[in-house]
Amino acid sequence: MLDRVAPGATVGILGGGQLGRMLALAAANLGLKSHIFCPDPHSPAFDVSARHSVADYEDEAALRAFAGAVDVVTYEFENVPARTAEIIESVRPLHPGAKALATAQDRLAEKTFVAGLGIPTAPFRAVRSEAELARALEELGGPAILKTRRFGYDGKGQVRIRPGDSVAEAWAQLGGAPAILEGFVPFSREVSIVAARGRDGSFAAYDACWNEHRDGILHLTRVPAHLAAATEQAAVAAAQRITEALGYVGVIAVEMFVLGEGEGATVAVNEIAPRVHNSGHWTSEGAQTSQFEQHIRAICGWPLGATGSTGRVEMRNLIGSEIEAWPEILGTPGAHLHHYGKAKARPGRKMGHVTTVHRKSE
Amino acid sequence: MLDRVAPGATVGILGGGQLGRMLALAAANLGLKSHIFCPDPHSPAFDVSARHSVADYEDEAALRAFAGAVDVVTYEFENVPARTAEIIESVRPLHPGAKALATAQDRLAEKTFVAGLGIPTAPFRAVRSEAELARALEELGGPAILKTRRFGYDGKGQVRIRPGDSVAEAWAQLGGAPAILEGFVPFSREVSIVAARGRDGSFAAYDACWNEHRDGILHLTRVPAHLAAATEQAAVAAAQRITEALGYVGVIAVEMFVLGEGEGATVAVNEIAPRVHNSGHWTSEGAQTSQFEQHIRAICGWPLGATGSTGRVEMRNLIGSEIEAWPEILGTPGAHLHHYGKAKARPGRKMGHVTTVHRKSE
Repeated sequence: MLDRVAPGATVGILGGGQLGRMLALAAANLGLKSHIFCPDPHSPAFDVSARHSVADYEDEAALRAFAGAVDVVTYEFENVPARTAEIIESVRPLHPGAKALATAQDRLAEKTFVAGLGIPTAPFRAVRSEAELARALEELGGPAILKTRRFGYDGKGQVRIRPGDSVAEAWAQLGGAPAILEGFVPFSREVSIVAARGRDGSFAAYDACWNEHRDGILHLTRVPAHLAAATEQAAVAAAQRITEALGYVGVIAVEMFVLGEGEGATVAVNEIAPRVHNSGHWTSEGAQTSQFEQHIRAICGWPLGATGSTGRVEMRNLIGSEIEAWPEILGTPGAHLHHYGKAKARPGRKMGHVTTVHRKSE
Repeated sequence: MLDRVAPGATVGILGGGQLGRMLALAAANLGLKSHIFCPDPHSPAFDVSARHSVADYEDEAALRAFAGAVDVVTYEFENVPARTAEIIESVRPLHPGAKALATAQDRLAEKTFVAGLGIPTAPFRAVRSEAELARALEELGGPAILKTRRFGYDGKGQVRIRPGDSVAEAWAQLGGAPAILEGFVPFSREVSIVAARGRDGSFAAYDACWNEHRDGILHLTRVPAHLAAATEQAAVAAAQRITEALGYVGVIAVEMFVLGEGEGATVAVNEIAPRVHNSGHWTSEGAQTSQFEQHIRAICGWPLGATGSTGRVEMRNLIGSEIEAWPEILGTPGAHLHHYGKAKARPGRKMGHVTTVHRKSE
């Protein structure tokens, strides 16, 4: 722990959205300052940070000045360009590191990596042309999902293809970007494992959580996920194997499909997010240590906090105009409102979330 | 609720210490911006606020500009000068209001006010001269405490006088400032009621907490306080009566002495703090709504949050060099570190606190 970051130091955060904001709030509670780097001059995270830099992620001079002014750097989004990460790492430690970024920002690299660890995923094929798409559809059979390899999030950059659909049309819809075709997985539901790995290799997972999406965006997270003990153990073991293979430092979210029900259920990894994650927001009130504090602890070289749940928890996203319900939420006993302070409630925009904890004794 | 403050608005806070900092953090979580006003250019609260003003509390132009830039104003310390409050109130709502400030910043006004509500206090006398001190000592009898009427905190501005002590010396020690002599109260222990009153007159108290001081500074707060039900009810009723008589809006802390033990115990009010209070820090993890969020809810005209405790709680202050234990605290499962991010750990300075919750089910 010789080179650990101490209170009073500054955490640099790439990205100034709600995740950067909640990381900055957690850092402040631990006596750390935050410096946010974001091209958007109206970033919500700026309001809670000691310093901020408004510049592009390609602006080398600005990146060097930023990195030089902080003690450790992290990020709130996985699409940090490789060159950006390289510049930062030449000046200060970046956690999670470049390998995690490179893996998570390319769906093909991600699936190949996970499958290479012997962890189940949906069947997949690389697709670089309409001809490859046609071949891949034949090989995987049945319905499938064509996804761009990069820059997809919240259901964007995806096309469902059913038997009989036009291959040319599907390929055109993604604009010819390098893609991956994923076979349909007949999952019963979606869960994620939010976990952390420390700089010393220690590992701590939160209880598995059960996620429901609407229009490709997370709608509801519930804890416990009601997985059979063996299924949850396998899910956590997969997350741990992934963090170890990546030499990972920080909080990670591993989204998984549950195949089957009850005792015999298994999991297949869908996606890795090398950062704090929407499906971990419930930890702010629902776990002994929030994912945001846990991430700060990990990247600073501090011991990981306890991850036990404080009860039965429900986290609901407030998307777009749903944020207008804030007065009713404030009036609901036991509901915890998190409002991200964003100026405009555009449709599909994550504006806040609300968490309810039914404590174990109740 | 027509004139309530909405997320996106700015809360103005007079004072930039740890209380202002924790208020700003709570405000941010609710989608509000903070603007801190403090003469100290190194205020820890500046690091977590969207804007700050560095100016004296007597700087009328700066105060007007500050008030004009925010939607509602509050403060972290009760010694806000009356003229400052008046200037602010001419521009924006100030909560708690001028009456609470005037009452709480003068020990004589405070005791007179509380006693006037029929609530027990220590016996007291106003003291403006050595002669009055001699007379007051005779009237109250036994040991007593001479306190300056204003600007006392954390045991400062106080002299204990035992029978036989030199009256002249005691009087000289306070430098001739207007004072109050308080008779000794044979208390078994000290508790406080942290509570809130909303703009609509609603009232919500946290569980009574049991405070231990060291060298005049709060050392440890424990919840529950193990008061008999009737004693706790009387304590809460006293706090509610005080807030109603003050037309109070916000969180208040009422420090009390417990006289006697068990079922027959009674309480006497020692001091009122018209603000969030160190003895309420345990609420961040130990209650359903933290005192900081509760204060923001109250001053914004929002419904008060639930105040139930989440378990058995212990809050320990980290004074001066005690903050150096932060690595061990981070390594203690279930301990929640709050580090105020102050640069220098001077002796007697509040540097942080640590809260442990033993959940009800454990």
